[in-house]
Amino acid sequence: MVQSQQKLDRVLVRVQDLSPEKADQLIWLRARIHTSRAKGKQCFLVLRQQQFNVQALVAVGDRASKQMVKFAANITKESIVDVEAVVRKVEQKIESCSQQDVELHIERIFVISQAEARLPLQLEDAVRPDGEGEEISFHTTTSQAIFRLQSGVCQLFRDTLTKKGFVEIQTPKIISAASEGGANVFTVSYFKTSAYLAQSPQLYKQMCICADFDKVFCVGPVFRAEDSNTHRHLTEFVGLDIEMTFNYHYHEVIESITDTMVQIFKGLRDNFQTEIQTVSKQFPSEPFKFLEPTLRLEYTEGVAMLREAGVEMGDEDDLSTPNEKLLGRLVKEKYDTDFYVLDKYPLAVRPFYTMPDPNNPKYSNSYDMFMRGEEILSGAQRVHDPELLTQRAVHHQIDLEKIKSYIDSFRFGAPPHGGGGIGLERVCMLYLGLHNVRQTSMFPRDPKRLTP
Amino acid sequence: MVQSQQKLDRVLVRVQDLSPEKADQLIWLRARIHTSRAKGKQCFLVLRQQQFNVQALVAVGDRASKQMVKFAANITKESIVDVEAVVRKVEQKIESCSQQDVELHIERIFVISQAEARLPLQLEDAVRPDGEGEEISFHTTTSQAIFRLQSGVCQLFRDTLTKKGFVEIQTPKIISAASEGGANVFTVSYFKTSAYLAQSPQLYKQMCICADFDKVFCVGPVFRAEDSNTHRHLTEFVGLDIEMTFNYHYHEVIESITDTMVQIFKGLRDNFQTEIQTVSKQFPSEPFKFLEPTLRLEYTEGVAMLREAGVEMGDEDDLSTPNEKLLGRLVKEKYDTDFYVLDKYPLAVRPFYTMPDPNNPKYSNSYDMFMRGEEILSGAQRVHDPELLTQRAVHHQIDLEKIKSYIDSFRFGAPPHGGGGIGLERVCMLYLGLHNVRQTSMFPRDPKRLTP
Repeated sequence: MVQSQQKLDRVLVRVQDLSPEKADQLIWLRARIHTSRAKGKQCFLVLRQQQFNVQALVAVGDRASKQMVKFAANITKESIVDVEAVVRKVEQKIESCSQQDVELHIERIFVISQAEARLPLQLEDAVRPDGEGEEISFHTTTSQAIFRLQSGVCQLFRDTLTKKGFVEIQTPKIISAASEGGANVFTVSYFKTSAYLAQSPQLYKQMCICADFDKVFCVGPVFRAEDSNTHRHLTEFVGLDIEMTFNYHYHEVIESITDTMVQIFKGLRDNFQTEIQTVSKQFPSEPFKFLEPTLRLEYTEGVAMLREAGVEMGDEDDLSTPNEKLLGRLVKEKYDTDFYVLDKYPLAVRPFYTMPDPNNPKYSNSYDMFMRGEEILSGAQRVHDPELLTQRAVHHQIDLEKIKSYIDSFRFGAPPHGGGGIGLERVCMLYLGLHNVRQTSMFPRDPKRLTP
Repeated sequence: MVQSQQKLDRVLVRVQDLSPEKADQLIWLRARIHTSRAKGKQCFLVLRQQQFNVQALVAVGDRASKQMVKFAANITKESIVDVEAVVRKVEQKIESCSQQDVELHIERIFVISQAEARLPLQLEDAVRPDGEGEEISFHTTTSQAIFRLQSGVCQLFRDTLTKKGFVEIQTPKIISAASEGGANVFTVSYFKTSAYLAQSPQLYKQMCICADFDKVFCVGPVFRAEDSNTHRHLTEFVGLDIEMTFNYHYHEVIESITDTMVQIFKGLRDNFQTEIQTVSKQFPSEPFKFLEPTLRLEYTEGVAMLREAGVEMGDEDDLSTPNEKLLGRLVKEKYDTDFYVLDKYPLAVRPFYTMPDPNNPKYSNSYDMFMRGEEILSGAQRVHDPELLTQRAVHHQIDLEKIKSYIDSFRFGAPPHGGGGIGLERVCMLYLGLHNVRQTSMFPRDPKRLTP
C-alpha cells in the first residue's frame, strides 16, 4: 500500500518525456518492467509506460551493489517499479524502444506491485508483426495505441457536432418493444415482464427531432442478436448516431455527416501519428486517403462501375459484401479515396421508414458510407408524415399495432429530417487498415464470446 | 415533402437571433405555432423554436388578405410553418416571450408539417409553475433547457478529464457474470445461454488501469434491477465513471474528481444561464453553491455534526437517506456549500474491494460526494493486491469462484488506483434543484415504466 508519508515531493516523470534535454538529470519514474536481461555485473531492463518504453541499466559500481543488481534481475516481468535514475544520452539509437536517444542508469529501485512469475503470455512476444492475427493482447503498446485513437474518434465526433450546434442526447437501452419488427433482438427479464435491448437509438433520436431538438447525436452501445460470426460483426458495439432536421434537401444531412467524418480523419492524421505509427509497426497498412469535399456517387453509378468490371446484377438488387469491397477498389483506383458515399439506394432494399425518392419511386433518399470498401454508416431521410409512414409499413407487411407509438410520434408536427448510425469499432478498424473488428473492441462480444 | 427545387437561397434565421438589430428587415423563419389567437382582422401567433419564442402577427392590410388571416388562424397548434415576415421593434416588452423587444409582421406563411388537431396535452399549459409535478412534457421549453444543460454536463465532464490526460474507454454492457455478487442484476437471453446487464463499468475500468491506461473515464448506461420506486432511483441511468492511478495518496483521486465537478459547476454557471433561468421559471430554486477547493469532511466529523443535531447513531452505522439530507442542511448552514465530500467511510458498510484505512481498520479509503444533501457519487481506493482482495472477499462471504477472473486481473502487476461513478440524472436534478430524477431523464426507466 502506498502511504501519503512517502516523500510527496518526489515528482515522477513520464517515459514519453525522456529526451536528451534531460541528459544527466536525476529523475524518478514509475513504470512496468517490460523485459529484463542479466549479463555479468549488469542488468538491462526495458521499462514501459503505455505505448512508450525506455532502456534502463543497473550496473555494479559506485551507486549500485552486486546485491542490488541481483535484486533487480529477479523482479518479475510486468511488475510495477519506482526507479531513481540518471538520464544518459546514448551514441547509437536504441531502435527497439520509443525513447531512442537516452537510457536510464538506475540508482534505486522499489517494487510497487509485483506481477506473478507465470504470466498468461509473454508480452514481448505479443507485438510481433502479424497481419492475420485476430486478437491483440490488451496489454501491448499496439492495443494502447488503438484505444487511444478510438478515444480520439469519439472526441472528434462530438467536438465537431457540438460546434455545428448539435445537442448530445442519452437514449434508453432497455425498451418495451422491438421497434423495427422484432428480429435479431435480445430479450431481458424485466421484473415480472419481458423487455428488449435497443438495436438502435433511431426511434429516440427521431422523437427528439419531433420535440424540436433540431440536431442531435448520441454515443452508446447498440445490441444485435445476430448469429453472424464474421470479421466485422459484433453483438454489442458502440454506435455514433446522428439525426438532424434540414431546411431544403436531405443532402444537407449527407454534407453534415461527411464533413464530420472528414474532421475525424484530419484530427487523427494530425494528432494521432504516434498511435498510427505504433499500430502500423505490428499491422502495416496504406495511409487512409480521403477527399474534400467527400465523393458522392449515386447507386446507379456504382452499379454501372461494377457491371463494367464484369459483375451481373439487377438495378434494384442490394450490394453483396464482396461487391461492396470490389466497388471500394474500383472507386479507389478511379478517384483515389478510401472514403465515399453511395447515395439513392433502391427503395426495395431499405427499411420501411426510408423516404422514397420523389422523382423516381424505384429509388430512395438513402445512403451508405464506406471506408476501404466496407460499410461504416447506413442512413436516410426518414418519412416524417404519419400517413405515408403507415402506407410504407403496410407495404412492408409490418404489424401496425406494434409500431403504433412510432407512427404516432409524427402526429404532433414533424420537421423533415434524416440521419445515420456509424459503427465506432469499424471506423477504427478500417482507418487503421486492420482486418478484424475484435481488434478495435476492448471487450468484444460475439455469439460465442461474453468474457472478459 | 421538401424539394431541392424550393428556393435554396432562402436563408432561415433563428428565433433566438431576433433582436432590435434586425428591426425592419424581411426575414424567413421556420418554427412551430405555440399559441394562436384570432381577434377581428388580426391573428396573433407565438412561434416557438426550442426554448425560444417570439410573438407574430398576421393582420389584414397591404400584404395580407382576409383569407390569409383566416388561413393562419386555422393552422393547428404545434404545426411547423415557414414564415416570411418583417421584424418590428415593440414599445412595451413582451413578457411572455423569450424575444421581448421585437415582434414579427407576417407577410407569407406556409405549412411544413401539420399537427393533428387533437394533441395529447396543451403545450402552453404544460410549463405552468408546479414544484411537485413528477413529469415534464418532453415538448416544453423547460424540457429543452434541462436536456441542453444535461448535454453540457457530459461535455464539461469529458473536456475536463481529457485536459487532465484521461482516456475515454467503452465498456461492455452484456456480461457473463455478475461481478459484485449477483443481486439486482437483469438477465439477458444470449443465444443458447444467459448473460447479465452490467451494474457498473468498474471491473472494466480497473482492467484498463491494470493494462496501463493510467487514467480512464467512460459515459454510458448502467443497469440496476432494484425494485426501488423513489424520486431518485432509475433502473437504467447514465453513469459518468472515472478510474485513475495515483502516485502517493488516494486523495489525488478525490482531488481529480472534485475539481472535475467544480469545472462542471462553473461551466454550467457561466454558459448555461439561459437554460437555468428557463427551468427556474417553472421550478424555482436557490442557485447552486460550491466552494473551491471542495469541502472534504471525514465520516466521523459528519457523525459528530448529526449527533449534535440530536441524531442517535453508532460510529460504524451507515447514513440513512434522511440523515444524509439532514447532514446536507447542516453543512450548508455551517459552510455555505451545496457540494461536499464525505471521506473515510466505515469499512463495514462498503463493498469488499474497498481499500481499508491503513491507520485504522474500522475505516476505509472511500468516499461519497453530495449535492444538496443527496449522494451523487460513491467511490474508493480499490484493493489492488490479489491476496488482500481474496481476504476481503472471504470476510464478506463472497463465493471466490464467482469473482476469480476479477481477482486474477490483479496478478499481472497492478498500480494503486481509485475512482468513482457519478449519476448523470442526479447531478442535473440536484444542480437545478428539481425533485424527481424522472425530470432529468428523457426516457426514464423504473420498475413500472418501460415506455416510450
